[in-house]
Amino acid sequence: MSAQSENFSSAIDPVKLDKLAEVAIKVGLQLQPGQDLVMTAPSQALPLVRRIAAHAYKAGAGLVTPILSDEGVTLARYENANAESFDRAAGWLYEGMAKAYGENAARLAIAGDNPMMLSGQDPDKVARANRAQSNAYKPALEKIVSFDINWNIVAYPSLAWAKLVFPNDTDEVAVKKLADAIFAASRVDNDDPIGAWREHNANLRKRTDWLNSHSFSALHYSGPGTDLTIGLADEHEWAGGAATAKNGIVCNANIPTEEVFTTPHAYRVEGTVVSTKPLSHNGTLIDDIQVRFEGGRIVEAKASKGEAVLNKVLDTDEGSRRLGEVALVPHSSPISKSGLLFYNTLFDENAACHIALGQCYAKCFVNGTKLTQDEIAARGGNKSLIHIDWMIGSDKIDIDGIKPDGTRVPVFRKGEWA
Amino acid sequence: MSAQSENFSSAIDPVKLDKLAEVAIKVGLQLQPGQDLVMTAPSQALPLVRRIAAHAYKAGAGLVTPILSDEGVTLARYENANAESFDRAAGWLYEGMAKAYGENAARLAIAGDNPMMLSGQDPDKVARANRAQSNAYKPALEKIVSFDINWNIVAYPSLAWAKLVFPNDTDEVAVKKLADAIFAASRVDNDDPIGAWREHNANLRKRTDWLNSHSFSALHYSGPGTDLTIGLADEHEWAGGAATAKNGIVCNANIPTEEVFTTPHAYRVEGTVVSTKPLSHNGTLIDDIQVRFEGGRIVEAKASKGEAVLNKVLDTDEGSRRLGEVALVPHSSPISKSGLLFYNTLFDENAACHIALGQCYAKCFVNGTKLTQDEIAARGGNKSLIHIDWMIGSDKIDIDGIKPDGTRVPVFRKGEWA
Ligand SMILES: [Zn+2]
Ligand SMILES: [Zn+2]
Ligand SMILES: [Zn+2]
Ligand SMILES: [Zn+2]
Repeated sequence: MSAQSENFSSAIDPVKLDKLAEVAIKVGLQLQPGQDLVMTAPSQALPLVRRIAAHAYKAGAGLVTPILSDEGVTLARYENANAESFDRAAGWLYEGMAKAYGENAARLAIAGDNPMMLSGQDPDKVARANRAQSNAYKPALEKIVSFDINWNIVAYPSLAWAKLVFPNDTDEVAVKKLADAIFAASRVDNDDPIGAWREHNANLRKRTDWLNSHSFSALHYSGPGTDLTIGLADEHEWAGGAATAKNGIVCNANIPTEEVFTTPHAYRVEGTVVSTKPLSHNGTLIDDIQVRFEGGRIVEAKASKGEAVLNKVLDTDEGSRRLGEVALVPHSSPISKSGLLFYNTLFDENAACHIALGQCYAKCFVNGTKLTQDEIAARGGNKSLIHIDWMIGSDKIDIDGIKPDGTRVPVFRKGEWA
Repeated sequence: MSAQSENFSSAIDPVKLDKLAEVAIKVGLQLQPGQDLVMTAPSQALPLVRRIAAHAYKAGAGLVTPILSDEGVTLARYENANAESFDRAAGWLYEGMAKAYGENAARLAIAGDNPMMLSGQDPDKVARANRAQSNAYKPALEKIVSFDINWNIVAYPSLAWAKLVFPNDTDEVAVKKLADAIFAASRVDNDDPIGAWREHNANLRKRTDWLNSHSFSALHYSGPGTDLTIGLADEHEWAGGAATAKNGIVCNANIPTEEVFTTPHAYRVEGTVVSTKPLSHNGTLIDDIQVRFEGGRIVEAKASKGEAVLNKVLDTDEGSRRLGEVALVPHSSPISKSGLLFYNTLFDENAACHIALGQCYAKCFVNGTKLTQDEIAARGGNKSLIHIDWMIGSDKIDIDGIKPDGTRVPVFRKGEWA
């Protein structure tokens, strides 16, 4: 046996894996009869890719097109390619995806890459490749962030990821543990996952309704090392759980999800904030982030680990020093209670209140999916090639909502809904 | 261990696999510094995909983009999809590929699918899916058949294919035997594969030079059940081995290859011919084909096995009852001597003289890569969505070349060069 063909997929409960696929299609996408599906995934996730394809076709899908990436091919590039190669990207592929989304194909991404895949590689090459990739991906990403079509991300417990989360277990046990953690967080470890998601979406809806009814103009965070006022974008709207894409389909873009979130004002953030969990970015762990905002812009940034990578990220483009998302997650969220660091934003962002550098989401505005890019910018929505979430919540954080007249309303106390 | 993750890739000699990858890049494609590469492959072939990516980057490739298909996803469609799904194809993906080839990306395809993958499926669904796929693939295929860019096909010994060729061996032994057969046929089972290909290309060149110097207007085949005159296209040119693509790069499109071949005249084929080896087409074995041509068109077709599938193929479009290729392969070719039926045209067509139904190759005309579609048609070149080779050679076949003045020159006697 070669190591490459041994991925311990047999350690993964096949019934729950099938339920995860069903939830991705029926809850995540609500894939419609006749709708095409473009599915991106790492090659290790093929067992889930196949189950999702089956459920997509059972739901009446037109055509399911998997686009598989492969760690071995990616590393072959870093190990062998000329420097010039790292400025290249598959523009033809992403333009094609954009075309498919333009023709109403749904999009499903499976997260499962080795978070440390590029940790041993030249950071300059990584940065060049990311920039080229981000630029090429733009036409497709724009259709996703502006929510033109129903889309969804789910996770698959690949071996390298499992070993990072559970370094002290055998390969097989690590895969089983990560699989079970994914299944629990994705609410497929029960008899009625569809029902469980219905209830969860209703609970998140109560929170967003409450926040929207208050029309806060800013949030103020206080805690150890943090004294931060985040102005919210004009006509922002709080979202969370199920949402309706421009094509009219209600979907859950992230599985799992525990957050309610909205768009901060790109020019109205003031004060200091510290991270409360490490951020895993392209194979680098960035820890103990401390930043200071002035006029919405990060003017000072430090980190105890990964500071160089953090600064590279901040220098990506005009919008990478400003915020595109603010999200509330109670400290008692199931993912937080698992106590695990997943090294993957899809999970880690659901363990604590967080903010994101970079691109905002159109859907976090009143009638947001109908707004143009210019209208979004006029309301304070940020624009960037990046969208990087990092955790600022803990059981020591208090948050107040501030109304336009200055009235303060408790939102969080000691990390929980007030 | 699940069966899906066990593919016995460890039974494959890693040194020879790496040499195969090197030959694909250096001989098959002669990939140029800075040139991008689009690589299609079944997911089982990932060990070869990774080695090819490494050699591509060592040769200075721009970007290598693998597009992986997966048998499990394909079968999930046949088992679960609505009938309407089978009329759909990923046009956006193939248009994108065409764009990449238009920007001078090279194309490499790895053959290794289970030849019987679709053998249990509804033939109507298979036919519908193939038609939709062929139509969608057209823009990309046209750039390949008109030889706009350097392209190459190599093979990978996937388990299902190996078990079909070696049904009486264990999985592991079957994979090892098919791997060794592929390595031998691909001339990588020696110390200097690049040198071996140089010599082989020179030998094929001698044959094509001789055939081109005679300017035959037709070939006449005689043997048991066969009395066939194949008129050759006006200004046809014999090709074989290395050839120059329109982008100026010399490449070997097929690895392995033993044939010399040219374009027959779509309207000048008369007589009867029988197949000498079974044809494996989309999971169906078609055996003992007997057809009669009139004015280049097949007017009668029989087969002892798979006759219904054969007739479906012939009804694909206008050009599917006419010939697009005629190829000469001595009965003593190494692949013929192996005695194996590979159930794969890339190999089986190199075991015997063959003809192909359907699309012709532009490069098999004098200055062919500069001709328009109309000019090719005017010279007798056939046009079709299909190109299906089948074997008509054996040690009992004699072939004469017929010059425009009626002079006959022996070309083959008892299956060997005369
Ligand atoms: Zn978030
Ligand atoms: Zn986010
Ligand atoms: Zn041929
Ligand atoms: Zn052929």
